[in-house]
Amino acid sequence: MTQPSVKTIQIKKVNDNEAIEQPDLLAVEEPLEIRVGYGEQSNRQQIKIAVTMRTPGMDIELAVGFLFTEGIIRSTEDIESVKHCEDVGRDEKGNVIRVELKSHVQLKLKSLERNFYTTSSCGICGKNSIDSIKTELCYSIDGDQVMNAEVIKLLTATVNKSQFVFKHTGGIHASALFDLEGDMITLCEDVGRHNALDKLIGKELLNNHLPLSNKALWVSGRASFELVQKAAMAGLGIMVAVGAPSSLAVQLAEETGICLVGFSRNNSFNIYSQNNRININ
Amino acid sequence: MTQPSVKTIQIKKVNDNEAIEQPDLLAVEEPLEIRVGYGEQSNRQQIKIAVTMRTPGMDIELAVGFLFTEGIIRSTEDIESVKHCEDVGRDEKGNVIRVELKSHVQLKLKSLERNFYTTSSCGICGKNSIDSIKTELCYSIDGDQVMNAEVIKLLTATVNKSQFVFKHTGGIHASALFDLEGDMITLCEDVGRHNALDKLIGKELLNNHLPLSNKALWVSGRASFELVQKAAMAGLGIMVAVGAPSSLAVQLAEETGICLVGFSRNNSFNIYSQNNRININ
Repeated sequence: MTQPSVKTIQIKKVNDNEAIEQPDLLAVEEPLEIRVGYGEQSNRQQIKIAVTMRTPGMDIELAVGFLFTEGIIRSTEDIESVKHCEDVGRDEKGNVIRVELKSHVQLKLKSLERNFYTTSSCGICGKNSIDSIKTELCYSIDGDQVMNAEVIKLLTATVNKSQFVFKHTGGIHASALFDLEGDMITLCEDVGRHNALDKLIGKELLNNHLPLSNKALWVSGRASFELVQKAAMAGLGIMVAVGAPSSLAVQLAEETGICLVGFSRNNSFNIYSQNNRININ
Repeated sequence: MTQPSVKTIQIKKVNDNEAIEQPDLLAVEEPLEIRVGYGEQSNRQQIKIAVTMRTPGMDIELAVGFLFTEGIIRSTEDIESVKHCEDVGRDEKGNVIRVELKSHVQLKLKSLERNFYTTSSCGICGKNSIDSIKTELCYSIDGDQVMNAEVIKLLTATVNKSQFVFKHTGGIHASALFDLEGDMITLCEDVGRHNALDKLIGKELLNNHLPLSNKALWVSGRASFELVQKAAMAGLGIMVAVGAPSSLAVQLAEETGICLVGFSRNNSFNIYSQNNRININ
């Protein structure tokens, strides 16, 4: 059922002196429709929760992680089963996943409504949104974790050595989970950075490893409000981004107790919140 | 009413030899709620179409561009007025915009439904989605435009010289419109790359410059399905991305007639579709 995550096409490569046609690898982008229901025998209708443009692979983890970071499920206790739908058209094969919820799970319309939004993560305004996220959190971030600056400087190089799709395509985002000594535990890739993080959180949730309070999250690209929100849902205390954070990302990190690091590259980085959690010397 | 697009905070900067506290600039990220209605005197309810996390500035262009690229409006003839809502809470001031539609505009529920999705742009599956976009296009892309390779090599440097928020924060996406000689016409910045492009298309639409068939679009970052879709809606024939395209982006570009260029940097680039439109010598 699993579709490939890279695809070969013929391109024309232009540089200083020449233009040559040659094969090239692309990161695959395909929609994944996430549906929830209450058991295959039930008459209760299945509900289409979201369609996300993702790179195939770890679809189950992505669906579970998405439902968790959106506040629709709270733990594996809420899940009856997860599988790709078989009764769909040929074009949709492998692109529709159905999560059967236990009967005690109430689908909160407020959570679902968030999927009306063009990004999957925000409330009406920054302030209301941050408040609502704080009330939704499953875990409080205790802030005991301390990481050494020298360890943080090595994270990006460690990820780059391991990224499979990025190595072949140069065009994909990644989320990686590290222990506080800098050993990489999990690495997930996706054309959508929110999907890469949902895959990671879904995998850890399914292994009953949440909250990730004694771990550090590394993300490619920028730190947006949406990514910090997902990190907070998983109880992560330290988040390291290769790129810049936005204003709202920093505000949410500060208010939920996440130590947010940005511009992590070439032996340097910036600390935007909770800077007592990074041991400089 | 316009909010600032950058914000100053105190950070701790860590490099090889030292850690110093200093002020730093962040790109502002705030939600913008887009509502549509049918005249202030009308009893017909206003409808919340979307909330997008955006960098304040060009909110009107963003709202109009979003409604256009989502297929909700087809031209400026569909718009009665656009303005920020005044009757909202203090926290929402400047973050809610209302577009009054002319009475002839039918709100197509199918278009609205796309906003249920976690990215704003996709249908149930790649194939269906590409087909539905092709039927929705306002303009056919005729494919007569030709751009010289030497001109393409200069676009990224031209944008970098002009980017205001990026220069100060290092953390923002951009979309730029060029004529075929490489002169920059419009530059829009936003924490969301889809917003940067919607701002650009909204501005051109409001100036009655659509279709943009004799222009080239430059985008920071990767070329996703979503960005190619928006470019196709505006009738753009040439699209140049700094990063990699996804598989579905290339497929949609090929099928709609867009010449898609990726990895445009350091005097080199790759052509992924319609490569007869780039003049190499």
